[in-house]
Amino acid sequence: MELLDAFKWRYATKKYDSSKKVEQTLVDKIVEAARIAPTSSGLQPFEVFVITNQELKNKILPIAFGQEIVADCSHLLVFAAWDNYTSERIDKIYSHITTEREQPVDRYQAYTDRLKSMYLNRPAEDNFAHAARQAYIAFGFAIAEAATLKVDTTPMEGFANDELDKLLNLTEKGLKSVTLLPIGYRDETNDWLVSLNKVRHPKEDFVTAID
Amino acid sequence: MELLDAFKWRYATKKYDSSKKVEQTLVDKIVEAARIAPTSSGLQPFEVFVITNQELKNKILPIAFGQEIVADCSHLLVFAAWDNYTSERIDKIYSHITTEREQPVDRYQAYTDRLKSMYLNRPAEDNFAHAARQAYIAFGFAIAEAATLKVDTTPMEGFANDELDKLLNLTEKGLKSVTLLPIGYRDETNDWLVSLNKVRHPKEDFVTAID
Repeated sequence: MELLDAFKWRYATKKYDSSKKVEQTLVDKIVEAARIAPTSSGLQPFEVFVITNQELKNKILPIAFGQEIVADCSHLLVFAAWDNYTSERIDKIYSHITTEREQPVDRYQAYTDRLKSMYLNRPAEDNFAHAARQAYIAFGFAIAEAATLKVDTTPMEGFANDELDKLLNLTEKGLKSVTLLPIGYRDETNDWLVSLNKVRHPKEDFVTAID
Repeated sequence: MELLDAFKWRYATKKYDSSKKVEQTLVDKIVEAARIAPTSSGLQPFEVFVITNQELKNKILPIAFGQEIVADCSHLLVFAAWDNYTSERIDKIYSHITTEREQPVDRYQAYTDRLKSMYLNRPAEDNFAHAARQAYIAFGFAIAEAATLKVDTTPMEGFANDELDKLLNLTEKGLKSVTLLPIGYRDETNDWLVSLNKVRHPKEDFVTAID
């Protein structure tokens, strides 16, 4: 199947069949798509939490303003971005890159120095905003991968971030929740959105060619 | 080809073969992927500019701090987000949705009222930050689509946004540039990054299962 066909097939699922679970091999592929997504300077400033624990999903239900998809889905993915850039975080990934590529230890010294002088002098809130944007690319990659596997997803921003951070102990990990991605299989008979066609801005309003 | 293989194949191309142009049908597919990407409340608060004009690409070169990929690529895509949410913008897309779905004119009245009461009472800068995040999902979709078509891309944030906004008259359109996406075909012999392996945070540092 062409990827564009998968993109047309997907929609923001509004009702999951809670009896159908997504196989672990497929979940792994969806998370892997997020892991290998590109990010600014390769820092990958976010993590993904994959929740199947039903009790925890039920606790998230009120945090997601009662949207039942978070409880009925097969797996609930939480994308959480770094609350700030730090020397340790920058060094950790570049030390890993250096090792994996078998390069001299100081190969990225000048580069990471430059990153640090840029990020460590900015307010945490600007750095978090930047990190969150990177998470959205990976969020897109995960949604795309799921669509090719015929796994339904619901991209979600509507939840009380601070409460979720507290529930999942994200703050002490230096993370802040950004998006939720319930995955599973649609309940076709009970999903009001499934039969409505996908509507987008017309092409002429969306794209401008400058030749 | 599985999408994950396409994701592994892609990399942030550092040198394009300027003699090779991407066929228009492929460019159209890449832009279409961005157009059908999911966004918060379906607002699609961004536009895409596709630049092939060489003189204009050359003018962007200093704005992109001399990174030659913006001049050497086949097509330079610019993702530009709405500078703010407005009543007109919200009504325009929902009027279009209503028409396309052949629904009663007031079908989304309550919903758009809710969106307006949320967005129109927030500072423009918060709304732009939210709109920009949506653009990143579409940015991810475009990169994914290009990878399946074996078209190279370079996700870019490193440029002087204000200067580009001025050059492309984005401000008067109520837009602010967010990302650049040069697309084209890699110059394998002159690209320093092409032979280096893709390194990411190890899975155990990236994903946490809560069963």
